[in-house]
Amino acid sequence: MIDPVVLKGFRDSLPKEEIPKKKIMRVLEDVFTSFGFAPIDTPALEYTEVLLGKGGGETDKQIFRFKDNGGRDVALRFDLTVPFARFMAAHHDEVGVPFRRYHISKVWRGENPQKGRYREFVQCDFDIVGADNALSDAEILSVMHASFEALGIDRYTFHISHRGLFSLFLSTLDLGDKVIDVLRCVDKLRKIGTDEVRKQLVEITGSEDSADKVIAYITAGDGRSFMETLETLEGLSGGRSEASERMRSIYSMLTDLGIEKSFVFDPSSTRGLDYYTGIVYETFLDDLPSIGSVCSGGRYNDLASLYMKEKTPGVGSSIGLDRLLAALEELDSPLLKDTAAADVLIVPSIDREMSALSKAADLRKEGIRVSMYLVPDAKMKRIYAFAESNRIPYLITDDGEGFKAKDLRTREMLSVEDAVDRIKEERTI
Amino acid sequence: MIDPVVLKGFRDSLPKEEIPKKKIMRVLEDVFTSFGFAPIDTPALEYTEVLLGKGGGETDKQIFRFKDNGGRDVALRFDLTVPFARFMAAHHDEVGVPFRRYHISKVWRGENPQKGRYREFVQCDFDIVGADNALSDAEILSVMHASFEALGIDRYTFHISHRGLFSLFLSTLDLGDKVIDVLRCVDKLRKIGTDEVRKQLVEITGSEDSADKVIAYITAGDGRSFMETLETLEGLSGGRSEASERMRSIYSMLTDLGIEKSFVFDPSSTRGLDYYTGIVYETFLDDLPSIGSVCSGGRYNDLASLYMKEKTPGVGSSIGLDRLLAALEELDSPLLKDTAAADVLIVPSIDREMSALSKAADLRKEGIRVSMYLVPDAKMKRIYAFAESNRIPYLITDDGEGFKAKDLRTREMLSVEDAVDRIKEERTI
Repeated sequence: MIDPVVLKGFRDSLPKEEIPKKKIMRVLEDVFTSFGFAPIDTPALEYTEVLLGKGGGETDKQIFRFKDNGGRDVALRFDLTVPFARFMAAHHDEVGVPFRRYHISKVWRGENPQKGRYREFVQCDFDIVGADNALSDAEILSVMHASFEALGIDRYTFHISHRGLFSLFLSTLDLGDKVIDVLRCVDKLRKIGTDEVRKQLVEITGSEDSADKVIAYITAGDGRSFMETLETLEGLSGGRSEASERMRSIYSMLTDLGIEKSFVFDPSSTRGLDYYTGIVYETFLDDLPSIGSVCSGGRYNDLASLYMKEKTPGVGSSIGLDRLLAALEELDSPLLKDTAAADVLIVPSIDREMSALSKAADLRKEGIRVSMYLVPDAKMKRIYAFAESNRIPYLITDDGEGFKAKDLRTREMLSVEDAVDRIKEERTI
Repeated sequence: MIDPVVLKGFRDSLPKEEIPKKKIMRVLEDVFTSFGFAPIDTPALEYTEVLLGKGGGETDKQIFRFKDNGGRDVALRFDLTVPFARFMAAHHDEVGVPFRRYHISKVWRGENPQKGRYREFVQCDFDIVGADNALSDAEILSVMHASFEALGIDRYTFHISHRGLFSLFLSTLDLGDKVIDVLRCVDKLRKIGTDEVRKQLVEITGSEDSADKVIAYITAGDGRSFMETLETLEGLSGGRSEASERMRSIYSMLTDLGIEKSFVFDPSSTRGLDYYTGIVYETFLDDLPSIGSVCSGGRYNDLASLYMKEKTPGVGSSIGLDRLLAALEELDSPLLKDTAAADVLIVPSIDREMSALSKAADLRKEGIRVSMYLVPDAKMKRIYAFAESNRIPYLITDDGEGFKAKDLRTREMLSVEDAVDRIKEERTI
């Protein structure tokens, strides 16, 4: 016998997990599609050089990398951004720009598994490339808003800020050459707190005064409205600028769309990654801030510079689907409640299998999901256990005088027609 | 610069391919769900021993196999059957039997790429395990029938036969110990023709007479109805048997469901694989038989014997999604026609972006998929090129006096309301 185990950091997805996961993916796909985003896919396996670039390859232990049977140095993708950059370089002319795509797929990382972290997980990315203006920024933010609404999440907040504005501010402090260090430090604010960030900022900038000014900048959103924050930051960064005007336009568009209340200007949201140049954003669930951002991204100046000369500016977002699922579970989301494999379970009587098959076919034509208990002479105890493990709410049996239904939650007997009506009603709620 | 190429045998999926692929997957998922099949997922990467068993490991060059950073011997799954067997052994009690699952996911094989064959492809499997009776067999066949109907494929035929019946027949010829060799030979009938199969059968059986009898058996379906074939085979295999009674029950259920016309009894359909024990089947498109079977499977006695002692009999099918897609393309299927990334493209005028954003939001509320051209001062030529490369049928522009629509296929101008009506009409066809 071989032990039927999976690798450390990997896991099977059982129906009770996979059913809600598929539901969430469909909801998101429908939102993306309604905004004209098109799906793409890329290979799970690529040349290591393509994924890591020419330099950084040797040192990266976090990826699944190997020599294939043809001796090629290959690796499993560790995100969907790098393959998308390669994709744009390869298909730029064919897809046309501005190009809006979404990609929901698995990625793999060899990092040490922790609670809620796995070596195989699903990412959900959506980007618009080939346009650099407030309209595209607002469009991505609208998609994010529409996604969280469609998922039925009540309380969430998008924290936005602008990298360019922050850089302007830092250059007024003569810290233009330390932007990345300062960004990475500020990015840890939620984790390590203001005091520790200030301490590190003193080290980075070499000045208590500079550190205090940076702290003042990143906390400028506290207790202030979006526009008040923007004006305060304009003051701190030397007056109106292209960056601040961009934020003004975006906010005015969000207001016009009536969705501005979900957005706060949070200058401490900087994102650690180097490549962002314009707006950056994170998404927090108000009732579960500890889980961290469930949807993040920003504007980048040049996606595919590793593979092509032409610039491809863009703006994009990534939803961590597994983290979002964990959050929805903790929030007891109704979206995860219905994990039934079917609406009804039909139990055929011995020698009357055919009438059960026909009944099932009829019900399916009405849009009812029908499972059938396939062992006709089974004990009721086993049948109930089957319905329970498949989370099926209604049972239909045949006593020779016609089919009867039973609501397994209340044990109430009812006619098949009434059961069908109830199933349809319950579905629309 | 790094060359943005993918590995040999791999490929990117552009929207014009991915949109219909996703559509087909949804159609199939809806069918599976309507029969109470639940989705599962398993890791892409598993212990090599789990995938290949203890013995066969060293020799199999067709799989992507490597040592991970922890020194484990791991491999990418090459089908969805082996991981499902491992899954059942691990979760048997939790999921409950009879268990019906579907799994649509990628698998990887290192075989040399040929026309239409890739190293990464999507499989679509559905099985019922834990029941061995005609009812389960008929249920799987019903799902297959419902799938092809839902895909809108007009002309297809399921070729069924029964392994047990063939074995019975072979034992009447005293060929019981040569079943596998004969099966593998017969399985090549479509490829190499009757004469060559007969020649090989003479070699295998050592007898011209036996070879002729086998040929008579496997061609017994020619020009005969299902029931005539069944009775002929009963005659050849020593009379009525459990196997022939099973076929009779299945056919009677298919008849009761009114779907029997799609099924032929084809005793030459044997499937090469060892593990089938009952019915086996293949699916051919009447207008494209050369592409081979697009949906195959059968009944097996014991799925998970490598990993557990308990027997898990089952019956299952596998749709080769990439082959099916290629076929639908060749058949000019309407399912692949609509590859539009959106229904309409809105072009905002300069300084009137906000009204375009609002209009887009309103249309989305009506269920219209709306893309937006995000460069407000672009030339019409570029806008048309964008609409064309995204296959978007309607354009909406704003001349300052309100929005107007244009059907880009006919160049006809119309009101936005009329465009919306037409989009909805076109969708229901």
